[in-house]
Amino acid sequence: MDMTSPPAAAADCLGVSEVLGRIGDKWTVQVVVALHDRPRRFNDLKREIAGISQQMLTRTLKLLERDGMLERTVHPSAPPQVEYALSSLGRSLSQPLMQLAEWAIAHRDAVHESRVRYDASQLRAR
Amino acid sequence: MDMTSPPAAAADCLGVSEVLGRIGDKWTVQVVVALHDRPRRFNDLKREIAGISQQMLTRTLKLLERDGMLERTVHPSAPPQVEYALSSLGRSLSQPLMQLAEWAIAHRDAVHESRVRYDASQLRAR
Repeated sequence: MDMTSPPAAAADCLGVSEVLGRIGDKWTVQVVVALHDRPRRFNDLKREIAGISQQMLTRTLKLLERDGMLERTVHPSAPPQVEYALSSLGRSLSQPLMQLAEWAIAHRDAVHESRVRYDASQLRAR
Repeated sequence: MDMTSPPAAAADCLGVSEVLGRIGDKWTVQVVVALHDRPRRFNDLKREIAGISQQMLTRTLKLLERDGMLERTVHPSAPPQVEYALSSLGRSLSQPLMQLAEWAIAHRDAVHESRVRYDASQLRAR
């Protein structure tokens, strides 16, 4: 992608902002990361993703399925088991998403320290 | 980053979810992308980022500055010109963010078609 021409780049990004908005959702990131290596059942995902509610996981899975990132497989057991896996589209997203997650892990302390400094400077400026 | 161990990966991602939440914001993405090659003044950014309001741009710049991604330089002209540039932290983010933007541009049609298909199948299932 040629990003040297800023107005075109900005226009492109506006066109994809809806997609980016969905991707950036924190639960979406965590579901895609949790599924990156192999399929998972609902309860596995719920256990692995700390803090996610049943309702929010259901909603996130549905939105990912709607976007074509997920495949649902119903196994005819009793009770039926539903397994979620990344589609090829979902797998293609997991690469850039993992890089973003790596960035966030590597730099979260720097971001946190910057926030503390900024807030202190705002207090002093009052 | 070792992502082969899912519970640890999920825990890591929870720790960075606040950072990811901020990064994923659509205006944040567009401001970082607009600044990736050189500094810009407020009005340049406002013109380049279609659809952003004065208030939302001010808010996005402030949050990015608080996170340590941005540097403000005030030029002593009349009236004073404020220039915004990515800090080294902000520049380190622009790489993974551009990759995500590239993904979104490359796959937005696929996502859109999937949504149309999904919505039609939901209607048929009623």
